[in-house]
Amino acid sequence: MDKHIITRDFMDLQVHICRELELGDGIGSFQEDKWERVEGGGGRTRIFKNGKIIEKGGVAFSAVEGPTPEKILNKLKLKKADFFATGVSIVIHPYSPMVPIIHMNIRYFEMSNGVRWFGGGIDLTPHYVDLEDAKHFHQEVKKTCDLFNKDYYPKFKKWADDYFYIKHRNETRGIGGIFFDRLDSKDPIEMNSIFEFVKSIGYLFPNVYRHFMAKNHALPYSDSEKKWQSIRRGRYVEFNLVWDAGTKFGLDTNGRTESILMSMPPTANWEYMHQTIENSKEAKTLLYLKKDIDWVSL
Amino acid sequence: MDKHIITRDFMDLQVHICRELELGDGIGSFQEDKWERVEGGGGRTRIFKNGKIIEKGGVAFSAVEGPTPEKILNKLKLKKADFFATGVSIVIHPYSPMVPIIHMNIRYFEMSNGVRWFGGGIDLTPHYVDLEDAKHFHQEVKKTCDLFNKDYYPKFKKWADDYFYIKHRNETRGIGGIFFDRLDSKDPIEMNSIFEFVKSIGYLFPNVYRHFMAKNHALPYSDSEKKWQSIRRGRYVEFNLVWDAGTKFGLDTNGRTESILMSMPPTANWEYMHQTIENSKEAKTLLYLKKDIDWVSL
Repeated sequence: MDKHIITRDFMDLQVHICRELELGDGIGSFQEDKWERVEGGGGRTRIFKNGKIIEKGGVAFSAVEGPTPEKILNKLKLKKADFFATGVSIVIHPYSPMVPIIHMNIRYFEMSNGVRWFGGGIDLTPHYVDLEDAKHFHQEVKKTCDLFNKDYYPKFKKWADDYFYIKHRNETRGIGGIFFDRLDSKDPIEMNSIFEFVKSIGYLFPNVYRHFMAKNHALPYSDSEKKWQSIRRGRYVEFNLVWDAGTKFGLDTNGRTESILMSMPPTANWEYMHQTIENSKEAKTLLYLKKDIDWVSL
Repeated sequence: MDKHIITRDFMDLQVHICRELELGDGIGSFQEDKWERVEGGGGRTRIFKNGKIIEKGGVAFSAVEGPTPEKILNKLKLKKADFFATGVSIVIHPYSPMVPIIHMNIRYFEMSNGVRWFGGGIDLTPHYVDLEDAKHFHQEVKKTCDLFNKDYYPKFKKWADDYFYIKHRNETRGIGGIFFDRLDSKDPIEMNSIFEFVKSIGYLFPNVYRHFMAKNHALPYSDSEKKWQSIRRGRYVEFNLVWDAGTKFGLDTNGRTESILMSMPPTANWEYMHQTIENSKEAKTLLYLKKDIDWVSL
C-alpha cells in the first residue's frame, strides 16, 4: 500500500463528509484548525459551528509519523521502529434527542518493520432506540460490508457489541454497528480490497446520518426528553473516558487533546441513581442497550 | 489495629460530616442508601438533596471484604489472600461558582497476610482561585498535619500536586491539598498516631468547607461565571474518569458504580478549544492551576 494514496483518499473523504453534513444541516458550517505534531506530521480538525441540527461535531483528519511510542512497541512486543498513522474520525452530537449521536472512524497504521493494518468502525447511539431506525442502520452497514466479504458484518458487528460496551453500567453505548482492527493481507489485491472497504464505510457515514437528520430533526420533544438526552450524554462521556481504547491511548501518548476530546458532548448530566419510569420510552431504550441483538432481522 | 474500631470511627465520622454539612447548607438534607457487596461487606452512601448551597454531594462510607481482587494481588506481587477495606469518601459540588468543589477521602486496607495501610487526602477545586481562600485552606491542612508529623504536609502536599494532575491538559485539578497512601508502621503507637491523623483530616473537612460555604455562597455571579463553572466541571470529569486511580480501580474491579460516580458533577460542558480572555479572572485562575505553588507562604 502506498501511504500517500491512503492519506490523499482520507483527506478527500474528510472534505466530502464535511460538505455532506453542511448540506444536511442547511445552516451551520465547518471551521478548520490545522495543527502540527512536534515528532512529525499533523492534521486538520474541522469543527461544526452554528448548526441548526448539529449542536457539536467534529470531523478530524490526521497523518502522523515518527518513532513508535513505547506503549505500542511494548504491546506488540516489538523493537524500536518508526511508524506512520493516518485516519478520519467523527463524532456528531445533535440538538434534538430524537436524532442519534453517531461515531465513525477509519485508520491506517504501518511500521518500518513491515507491520501494517487498517482499522475502523461506525456505531450509532440513539438517545431513544427506534426499532425501524436501528434496523435501517444495521441493514445499510451490512449491505456495505457484504459488498466486500460476507464474513465482515457478523464478525465486526459482534466486535462492536464487545467494544462499545460500558462495563461498569452493563450497558452498550448505543445500538452498536461495526468495529474492526488489524485488518491486513499479504496479497496486494486483498489488501486493496480492505482499503476499498474501509473507504466505503467512510462514504456510507454521511448517507446514513443525513437520512436520520432529515427524518428525525423536526420531531417534537419535551424537557423530559432533553433531560434524558443529557443523562445519555453523560454515559457517552463515561464510555469515551473510561473504556475507549483510542481515547485512552491518545491521552496517554501525548496526542492532541482538543482533537481527541472533540468527541465530548456539549453538555452532560449526572444524577445519583437515576431511575426510569416503568414502561416509559426511557425504560424501553435501556432494554435495547444490550449485546447480541440481531437488529437486521428484527 | 482493630478493624472494628476503625470501621466504627469511620462510621461516626460520616454521621458527623453529614450533620455539619446539613447545618452549613441550612435547607438540604442527606438521604441514605444502604447496599451490600455480593463477595462480602457493604456500605451506606449518603446523598445530599434539595440544598440551598450544595447542588450535588455525597458522603460515602463502605467496609468491604473477601478474596483480594486479582488486580491488587498482581500489583503487589502477592499470592492469594483475603482483604478488608473501609473508608469515607466525599465530593461536594456547590451551585455557586464562587464556592469551591471539595473532595476528601480516608481509607484503611488490610490483608490476611499482614499487609495493611492507611491512605487518604483532601483537595480543593475552586472554579476561581482566590489567593486568600487558597492560603487559608492550605494553612488549615498544614496545621492539622503538623500536629502529628512536621514532614507530613510538605511530603503529602507534593504528592497531591502530582496526583491531582490532569496530564493531558497540563493543569492541576485545583489548588491541591494533601494526598497520602500506604502509611504503615510496625510500632503500634505510631500506627495509632497515623489512625488519629487520618481521622483528623476527616474532621477538618467539614470545618474548612463550612467556612467557604458561609463566606462565599452569597457572592454575586453572572451567566459567564456559571458557564466557566461548567467548563471546570468538565475538567473535573476528565480527571476522575481518565486519571483518578481510585475511580479507575473501582470501575475495573466491579465496585458499586453509583457510589464511585457520585463524584460526577450535576452538569458539565465541553467546548472545542475553549479560550479565556487575556487578564480575565478565568485566565488568572488557569495560571494558578500549576504544581509546586507554595500556598501557605503566599
